Amino acid sequence: MRTMLLVLTVYLLTILADAQSPPLNLMPMPASVKTASGQLVIDPSFSVAISGHTEPRLQRAVEIFLSDLRRQTGMLPLDMKISDTATGTLLIQCDSGTKEVQELGEDESYHLEISSSGAKLNSPTTLGIMRGLQTFLQLVQTAPVGFAAPAVTIDDKPRFPWRGLMIDCGRHFMPLDVIKRNLDGMAAVKLNVFHWHLSENQGFRVESKRFPKLHEMGSDGLYYRQDEVHDVIAYARERGIRVIPEFDMPGHSTAWFVGYPELASAPGPYEIERKWGVFDPAMDPTQEHTYHFLDEFIGEMAKLFPDNFYDIGGDEVNGKQWDANPKIQEFMRAHSMKSNQDLQAYFNKRVQAIVSKHGKTMIGWDEILRPELPRSVVIQSWRGQDSLARAATQGYRGLLSHGYYIDLMWPAYQHYVVDPLSGAAAALSSEEASRILGGEATMWAEYVSPENIDSRIWPRTAAIAERFWSPPNVHDVNSMYQRLEVVSHRLDFLGLTHNTGYATMLRRIAGSDDISTLKALADVVEPVKNYTREETAPAEPTSLTPLNRVVDAARPESDAARQFTDMVNSLLSGKPKPGTETQIRAALIHWRDNQVDLQPLAEKSFLVKEVMPLSQNLSALANAGLAALDYLAHGERAPDSWKSQQLALVEQAKKQQAQLLLMIAPAIRKLIDASEGQVSATAVNGVILPK
Amino acid sequence: MRTMLLVLTVYLLTILADAQSPPLNLMPMPASVKTASGQLVIDPSFSVAISGHTEPRLQRAVEIFLSDLRRQTGMLPLDMKISDTATGTLLIQCDSGTKEVQELGEDESYHLEISSSGAKLNSPTTLGIMRGLQTFLQLVQTAPVGFAAPAVTIDDKPRFPWRGLMIDCGRHFMPLDVIKRNLDGMAAVKLNVFHWHLSENQGFRVESKRFPKLHEMGSDGLYYRQDEVHDVIAYARERGIRVIPEFDMPGHSTAWFVGYPELASAPGPYEIERKWGVFDPAMDPTQEHTYHFLDEFIGEMAKLFPDNFYDIGGDEVNGKQWDANPKIQEFMRAHSMKSNQDLQAYFNKRVQAIVSKHGKTMIGWDEILRPELPRSVVIQSWRGQDSLARAATQGYRGLLSHGYYIDLMWPAYQHYVVDPLSGAAAALSSEEASRILGGEATMWAEYVSPENIDSRIWPRTAAIAERFWSPPNVHDVNSMYQRLEVVSHRLDFLGLTHNTGYATMLRRIAGSDDISTLKALADVVEPVKNYTREETAPAEPTSLTPLNRVVDAARPESDAARQFTDMVNSLLSGKPKPGTETQIRAALIHWRDNQVDLQPLAEKSFLVKEVMPLSQNLSALANAGLAALDYLAHGERAPDSWKSQQLALVEQAKKQQAQLLLMIAPAIRKLIDASEGQVSATAVNGVILPK
Repeated sequence: MRTMLLVLTVYLLTILADAQSPPLNLMPMPASVKTASGQLVIDPSFSVAISGHTEPRLQRAVEIFLSDLRRQTGMLPLDMKISDTATGTLLIQCDSGTKEVQELGEDESYHLEISSSGAKLNSPTTLGIMRGLQTFLQLVQTAPVGFAAPAVTIDDKPRFPWRGLMIDCGRHFMPLDVIKRNLDGMAAVKLNVFHWHLSENQGFRVESKRFPKLHEMGSDGLYYRQDEVHDVIAYARERGIRVIPEFDMPGHSTAWFVGYPELASAPGPYEIERKWGVFDPAMDPTQEHTYHFLDEFIGEMAKLFPDNFYDIGGDEVNGKQWDANPKIQEFMRAHSMKSNQDLQAYFNKRVQAIVSKHGKTMIGWDEILRPELPRSVVIQSWRGQDSLARAATQGYRGLLSHGYYIDLMWPAYQHYVVDPLSGAAAALSSEEASRILGGEATMWAEYVSPENIDSRIWPRTAAIAERFWSPPNVHDVNSMYQRLEVVSHRLDFLGLTHNTGYATMLRRIAGSDDISTLKALADVVEPVKNYTREETAPAEPTSLTPLNRVVDAARPESDAARQFTDMVNSLLSGKPKPGTETQIRAALIHWRDNQVDLQPLAEKSFLVKEVMPLSQNLSALANAGLAALDYLAHGERAPDSWKSQQLALVEQAKKQQAQLLLMIAPAIRKLIDASEGQVSATAVNGVILPK
Repeated sequence: MRTMLLVLTVYLLTILADAQSPPLNLMPMPASVKTASGQLVIDPSFSVAISGHTEPRLQRAVEIFLSDLRRQTGMLPLDMKISDTATGTLLIQCDSGTKEVQELGEDESYHLEISSSGAKLNSPTTLGIMRGLQTFLQLVQTAPVGFAAPAVTIDDKPRFPWRGLMIDCGRHFMPLDVIKRNLDGMAAVKLNVFHWHLSENQGFRVESKRFPKLHEMGSDGLYYRQDEVHDVIAYARERGIRVIPEFDMPGHSTAWFVGYPELASAPGPYEIERKWGVFDPAMDPTQEHTYHFLDEFIGEMAKLFPDNFYDIGGDEVNGKQWDANPKIQEFMRAHSMKSNQDLQAYFNKRVQAIVSKHGKTMIGWDEILRPELPRSVVIQSWRGQDSLARAATQGYRGLLSHGYYIDLMWPAYQHYVVDPLSGAAAALSSEEASRILGGEATMWAEYVSPENIDSRIWPRTAAIAERFWSPPNVHDVNSMYQRLEVVSHRLDFLGLTHNTGYATMLRRIAGSDDISTLKALADVVEPVKNYTREETAPAEPTSLTPLNRVVDAARPESDAARQFTDMVNSLLSGKPKPGTETQIRAALIHWRDNQVDLQPLAEKSFLVKEVMPLSQNLSALANAGLAALDYLAHGERAPDSWKSQQLALVEQAKKQQAQLLLMIAPAIRKLIDASEGQVSATAVNGVILPK
């Protein structure tokens, strides 16, 4: 796989820089794109013909494609058809069918040719056709002649065979419609693994017919029935997505013990956990009962989830219950186990045998990596590329999730620059490197609800999907952001709510239909990063805490602040586009005055009141920025006293308030620094030029 | 019923004018509202207790209420519970259960008391509890202390027992999710009848097990399975909504004849109709086979749809097939029928007997009203109150739909002022008037798709719902518009897309994520009114014509134009609020300059190009308005030549372009008229005052 990638000649054109043709807003960017002149008009008579191998899954993929194309172009169910090869606008040629259960590493390559007279899509497999159809959808644009796709020739294949998104439905349950629309989003950006995190201290989310107290007592009634699981798996399969269940053990398992306390290492009784964090309860690895139970349970789930892989989690056992249980201590001594890690390794080995007996390959987080385990297991690394590389050199296959934790509220580029084959992994032999299967974005769910989860997953996960699919030389951050914006709004047609839900949430917060002033503030803030939300919480957050504050509505990444920062950088570079200073001034004046305009809402709404300190800081920063601009414009050096005052203000404004960060603070700091002459400039015709 | 309404003492307070307390954004406005001081805080601990009679439907109604309340306040499934009466925040007392099949005229009254310490909701029936819960939801606001409902005492009951919305799923099929979210919207504004128009020339939309060629050959595969019909009926019942099917006959029935041509009055063969209009095919009323078929069909549908009423349509038979069929002519002669109306009356009488045999009461449009029919049938009037009053004096019950045709793109107030008991109906005796059961808004579907249908139904149908529910003295149009805006955005939480879908559609039209310039134009246009869309179509529209143009995205009513018109009226009244002229100028400058800014999009998008003549007119109107303001500001009289030129321009700009109307034209005309001195004014401190 890796070898093939290395010998692959990458024809990637710098299409975005081509002033002749409009940009191709493709994400992930294909391995090879050649543009030509002309375009294919897409109107109600558009049709798709299938030749070569066909199967129900391919037919269904084409139906879904037509439905998506209709939504994207505003056409109706009777427009656009499946036709015969003599009349089809898009001719599909598929060489062979796919496995009944989608497998890791099935060929996903495709060849797409579009000219003004028609289009051809060829692939060895139905999966490749699915990927090519998504590329086709992204190529269709509103044009002067109607809807149209530009003439192109694309040869494409994924860099990594495992491109996943994990959604944690344990901490906050996500209804089926949330899962389905996110599967649609995943398919749109060519992700192929839905990792379904189904049990947590806070909830056990799948119906078990063998052990019904798991879902009956462990879920608050919030679980997926087995017919719903079948439905999700079928829905995913139609989109070329594998579904891998994770039932975390031996830790993260309090919800199991509510119904089955005998599994735990302390007698209980247990209640569903409401708080967040790492907790003491863990399965008892020393009783045979545990393995009998898991044998039957895993047997049931192995049948319910057809994928070849089965995830046991295996992370974050604090060992306190083990330490405190004399029988367990006795067992460890009898088996010469020196540490809880040894005990967990024993547990994992026993569980691996069960998973294997039921025909599955085991996956788990970093912690499971121990020499006792067979080389077949797959390690999902939350620790990083070095840990992953170690596993690969030992012969284990691995997935990277470190760097793709989308719950940490990083900007898209910060995930985008993370490469599974960087760090220690860059030094692997090609055989070792081929063991690195790809990666997964992880949506941990302490602070997401069905209302805002889409805005935490999208659009940033599209950038991660590009990292997993596209050749490694696709890494231009500016190009990524340009395309990400377009892709983000394309996802609206799939019913994802990351864009459409924002105003609705702000209206609730404002208690008013006029949200212009609140939005001006919310647009330039971001939730605190990493694990700061827990640390800065006004009261201990639980699974019952409403997620309806500005921090829950604000986007993980502020486009407005990024664009403002770009303008400031451009201005201070000395070569800004005409009008840059005017735009900066307009933004600053708007922010400066917003505080007064927002005040009436703050008096009406407790949720607005909470963010008024941010609003005051925004106003103060804007004032400082305006003054700095004046110094710059007059070519004056700002007095030291003024400068130190302003920098103190910036430092103050950088601190979280209401668990939010004001993202224009660094750019204001640059303006203040520049006003001191660090970046010397003068104004000519309203444009600041370097002296 | 009517008598009771007349003796009802209406305590309606002019709450909106009360500067002390925030406005109560209730719609429909209850019969009696008394406000008090204080408020009930709504937080995660909020709970509902049920006492008195209970039944599964009531439990379910409370669950739906809690789910809606959580969505509205951004809370989570584990927040807010059903509790016992000792601890409940909201105590529900219900006197008795509801009928297994919801009936016309069941008591929907309720009494709601909210104080700072708790709330009580009493009703004779589960239906009344449902209505009261919707009122409670509308009372919950974002407040300084948290979410809160103000202290009030409300006594409420509907004015009319039949408050319906008809959705035509024959011309364009609407998927289940569209139906369900609109049922949610109906429940929110206390509508209680979903009239489901299920067959048309363009499609037969229900699975028939007895006559499968109806849906197999008559629907293009777009039909509701019987289990889906059950699902919709159950969903509606949980929300206190009756579901009444309409299978239109003997006309509007081409889709039936594709599978069963022997039902028609000419031999066929038939195809599903793609065009709009009134067509020739009609059932043959002279063959016994027709009645055998209808007996079995109606028997099947009478079981599928449990409601006591069954709608046979009966409208718009052009009679051409009857005229052309010698056997039918012979039959008419033999039975001394003088006209096709006589023949249709014979048909209706036969069908009525069948409907009655299957335990149902027949409904039909005006045309069915003939003395041959028993007094039990219900007449739905598309012709008006006079026609309705005639039916009532003859002893028939009736519903008004004339004036509530929401497909005609009228502004909300134009529907709002239509009263079922006005015109000839105002002169009815109270017994006769009691036969007027209410009315129905009708969503005919030539120009709606699943994407834009919500924006044609909402928010205007909320104003119609108020007409059907509230006492007749609730008729202040300004108050209605104020509350309508709030209610409109509340519906967003139910998943209705009338607000959220607008930007998505505009982005497709623009072929760009930046829609500010397109939106500036789209915000001030409205689709052409009444049946002008057909008349002005560039090519004959069919059921295959994409609904993706600006005319399909533009709202039926332009809030921006209405607000601008209000500002102009205020200015010319001589007593404008401070800043009015400044605001008018700013709007005009924006519109004047928008044309240039929109041009680049027009060069990229065929859908924007189509509306550029409107954009030019908008710019020209804005220029004229600015010049008129200058004359006014300087107290000068505009020259006659200028005036006549400008008025010609306004007349030109009032004409439809791209099937859209520029809604600021009348206000600009007023400014021009005023500049001539018709409304004489002068400017003092930026405010124009009368001389």
